[in-house]
Amino acid sequence: MEDRPPDGASMIGRPIRRKDRALGPDECLDLLGRGEYGILATVDAGGQPYAVPLSYVFLNGRIYFHCALEGHKVANIRHNSRASFAVVGKTEPVYDQGFSRYYESVIVFGPLRPVEEEREKHAALRALVDKYLPANLSEAEDDIKRLFSRTLVYRLEPAVLTGKAKKKK
Amino acid sequence: MEDRPPDGASMIGRPIRRKDRALGPDECLDLLGRGEYGILATVDAGGQPYAVPLSYVFLNGRIYFHCALEGHKVANIRHNSRASFAVVGKTEPVYDQGFSRYYESVIVFGPLRPVEEEREKHAALRALVDKYLPANLSEAEDDIKRLFSRTLVYRLEPAVLTGKAKKKK
Repeated sequence: MEDRPPDGASMIGRPIRRKDRALGPDECLDLLGRGEYGILATVDAGGQPYAVPLSYVFLNGRIYFHCALEGHKVANIRHNSRASFAVVGKTEPVYDQGFSRYYESVIVFGPLRPVEEEREKHAALRALVDKYLPANLSEAEDDIKRLFSRTLVYRLEPAVLTGKAKKKK
Repeated sequence: MEDRPPDGASMIGRPIRRKDRALGPDECLDLLGRGEYGILATVDAGGQPYAVPLSYVFLNGRIYFHCALEGHKVANIRHNSRASFAVVGKTEPVYDQGFSRYYESVIVFGPLRPVEEEREKHAALRALVDKYLPANLSEAEDDIKRLFSRTLVYRLEPAVLTGKAKKKK
């Protein structure tokens, strides 16, 4: 597994070009908490990027998502655990001396780890249901148990987190 | 610029695991045409993926987007022109013997090229305004001219295009 830190060529942590549009840390965490879905970017062994939409939950400062035991993203992550994750909130096109858009978005960089510890995996799966379908939380317990061994849960630890917005005045 | 085709390790073109959820070609093109925004995945020289949301237009079978002359994605693309682009349409969480979701999404793989030819670049910028802000199309002409030299336009030619959906019954 390739897992070295980003090298000198990395663009991570480079300052946002438009500083007037940068979100503060609290605004970034707020958007991560309420995002309807996110897009995960990983890369395969041949250097080909892969963007895939995911349901996720932001729990204890980490991004959790679940997936099947095999697939494109699982193969990518096993080869290179580095990822980026983007969440978009409210957005609306606007004409402002050229094509523009009101938006709010957050982009996270960090390593992905499979969650091995049963208690943490269980908590993440419960938190996913609680975020999206809180009315189904009690019946979910049996399904979580039933699907537990057929489900992978990954954890993304934000190493760098940046948010941007153009706000409606 | 690294621009070789995906090597043997590539996951591109691997069959969709859940064939019952695959969208047909026309459905994929329809969703690409009406998507509110997309997320572009690129990778930097150090192997770090980058996911970024973009306004875009699907024109003559290609995905076009515009950006400033410099930035994170421009640097990534100059190093490695391969990209993936994901568009999500209607989506709604649903409880179905476990946490699930109605959704429709399309994922594109292909090379990115800067649009050098002035006529094509102009047509792409007009098409962007026409997609998102058709009422502003006539006034956009002056702004497109004014911003032309300060704007980069990229073209993504879909080499592989896959769509998936879980449809509301």
